[in-house]
Amino acid sequence: MDCLFCGIVAGTVPSQRVDEDERTVSFMDINPATEGHLLVVPRAHARDLLDAEPDDLAACARTAQRLAARVVERLGADGVNLLSCCGEVAWQTVFHLHLHVVPRYAGDPARDDLTLPWVPTPGDAAVIAATAERLR
Amino acid sequence: MDCLFCGIVAGTVPSQRVDEDERTVSFMDINPATEGHLLVVPRAHARDLLDAEPDDLAACARTAQRLAARVVERLGADGVNLLSCCGEVAWQTVFHLHLHVVPRYAGDPARDDLTLPWVPTPGDAAVIAATAERLR
Repeated sequence: MDCLFCGIVAGTVPSQRVDEDERTVSFMDINPATEGHLLVVPRAHARDLLDAEPDDLAACARTAQRLAARVVERLGADGVNLLSCCGEVAWQTVFHLHLHVVPRYAGDPARDDLTLPWVPTPGDAAVIAATAERLR
Repeated sequence: MDCLFCGIVAGTVPSQRVDEDERTVSFMDINPATEGHLLVVPRAHARDLLDAEPDDLAACARTAQRLAARVVERLGADGVNLLSCCGEVAWQTVFHLHLHVVPRYAGDPARDDLTLPWVPTPGDAAVIAATAERLR
């Protein structure tokens, strides 16, 4: 097993572990977007969102919520983003499912200069309706 | 009740609904980041991630996974991002919890020009360790 996050779960790869439960382990991101940036992973290896057991994904979401509350309470974060990246095109770099928990801080660009990945722009209603039909 | 997404759940506000189950409703984002951009919301009103019932959040994650598989299968997406925005500073604009399901497409900037909200940069290990201690 050459999976970095399996190594962290097993404890053979060092990490700053913050939380764990039956299904999940959470630790600090070493490339933090902001102060307190955490990763939540399932103990069971899954390559990505598509590959994961639904119960493991749900457990990761519950843990992420618990940690979101904690970064607000303990670090004074003003908000939180959850992000999951499935596939190289979606910025995935470690192929063991993980949820980013990114604390957000208002009013201080030196502390938080994140930008939304897209510029919200109204789509064409007919195109959206046609796409919806393909997804039903 | 002036909540836009409660209106969509109730059917009093029009939407392109794609999926629904006991706890969740999913519909097209009218400001799509890419083709097939969906929102998953709990039927029960919750302001945001911090306010939501854990079972509702878990249900939204399961639905998002199901829809991620669907955008890959039906739209030929090459990857998927899930994003949740909790708080104004985290880009939340509608205050009813929602998960963005954003299909990603490789090799065509006209179709997908999203950028990661931060530039991954190694953090200071001592600072990260100190933050971890505050979060344990």
